[in-house]
Amino acid sequence: MVSKPAPDATRRSEKSRRAIYAAALSLVAEVGYPKTTVEAIAARAGVGKQTIYRWWSSKADVLLEAFLDLAEQTAREAGHDTAGQDTAGDGTAGDEAAAIPDTGDLAADLKAVLRATVDELLDPRFDAPARALTAEGVVNEQLGRVFVARLLEPQLQLYVARLRSAQDAGHVRRDVDPRIALELFVSPLAQRWLQHTGPITYDYTDTLVDYALYGLAPR
Amino acid sequence: MVSKPAPDATRRSEKSRRAIYAAALSLVAEVGYPKTTVEAIAARAGVGKQTIYRWWSSKADVLLEAFLDLAEQTAREAGHDTAGQDTAGDGTAGDEAAAIPDTGDLAADLKAVLRATVDELLDPRFDAPARALTAEGVVNEQLGRVFVARLLEPQLQLYVARLRSAQDAGHVRRDVDPRIALELFVSPLAQRWLQHTGPITYDYTDTLVDYALYGLAPR
Repeated sequence: MVSKPAPDATRRSEKSRRAIYAAALSLVAEVGYPKTTVEAIAARAGVGKQTIYRWWSSKADVLLEAFLDLAEQTAREAGHDTAGQDTAGDGTAGDEAAAIPDTGDLAADLKAVLRATVDELLDPRFDAPARALTAEGVVNEQLGRVFVARLLEPQLQLYVARLRSAQDAGHVRRDVDPRIALELFVSPLAQRWLQHTGPITYDYTDTLVDYALYGLAPR
Repeated sequence: MVSKPAPDATRRSEKSRRAIYAAALSLVAEVGYPKTTVEAIAARAGVGKQTIYRWWSSKADVLLEAFLDLAEQTAREAGHDTAGQDTAGDGTAGDEAAAIPDTGDLAADLKAVLRATVDELLDPRFDAPARALTAEGVVNEQLGRVFVARLLEPQLQLYVARLRSAQDAGHVRRDVDPRIALELFVSPLAQRWLQHTGPITYDYTDTLVDYALYGLAPR
């Protein structure tokens, strides 16, 4: 569905691609998803509409790739390894996400990743476009499901992998479903960010990890 | 800020009020918050615009009260007690929410309340308007904060109260912050509902409670 520039893309087309991503992200942040059009993205990026349609089939595709690119950039800036995972789940190379480190200390590893997520959520480059897209996904189930499948679920699967390895090491109970377990620390942070229900800090995410691993009941 | 019909409101004005709530909820579900206007609510409810402005100062106020009324209705239908709490936090009588039961079995009590929340989230009367309003709150921080403060936080404070009583009974560790702890089971459900990240079932919410109380790590 998503076509990419050929490997021999010129420097000029790479520059256009970056301008298109930047235009798409800033537009969606300013006017919301419904009013973001391919025409407006093209105008802001200083390219012809046909340049966009040569590479992408819709505004949803442009935005999807713009977000994958942004996530890659911010991960690179944060100095994370890119473990070569196919986070887009579509077999394409290039859309990579950092695996969660496995130092043998599950709590420390989860806290480190969640602190990096806090940084990302508080980064204005990410915050406004991600809010606009998420808001649209809340009322537009079809679009929401596509973006979750391509942008969010691949990140969540990194937690699944780390929790499975913790199960192998005896640090997480065998009967725990990792796909549900990760929600105990990921979803609270997501809700505070999305709904402004509370402050987002390192202390907060550290606390979530401790509560999730050791439980609320006395041991 | 929110004015209410006088206690001597006639049957006719009560009927208008109900028509206005229904119109506001159905409109926001259909066209979204930005395009919902007081004029359109009035037209759909079959009342004059001035009737609305006599009772409420803005469309946000109408929607806020419409949701409080809907929550009250669904709680009543579900046979919950209304414990007389001031869930709106504004000192008004009438906006009441069910307290969380305290049978002495924390897990059972939390599971029962979350199952009722599952029912509410899957109720089409609630789902579409609540999505529209939540989506707007994601991109409109000021509105989001008002609705969270008036509609969501009062519900969350019921969990705080139940967790405090569990701390007194020795069922939750003393060093746990109840306002964060409740997010371990409330936020995952909220995220699955909002972002379509997974199925919403009783089994799922039961599992969240067990994981949160007893933790992911072996005991």
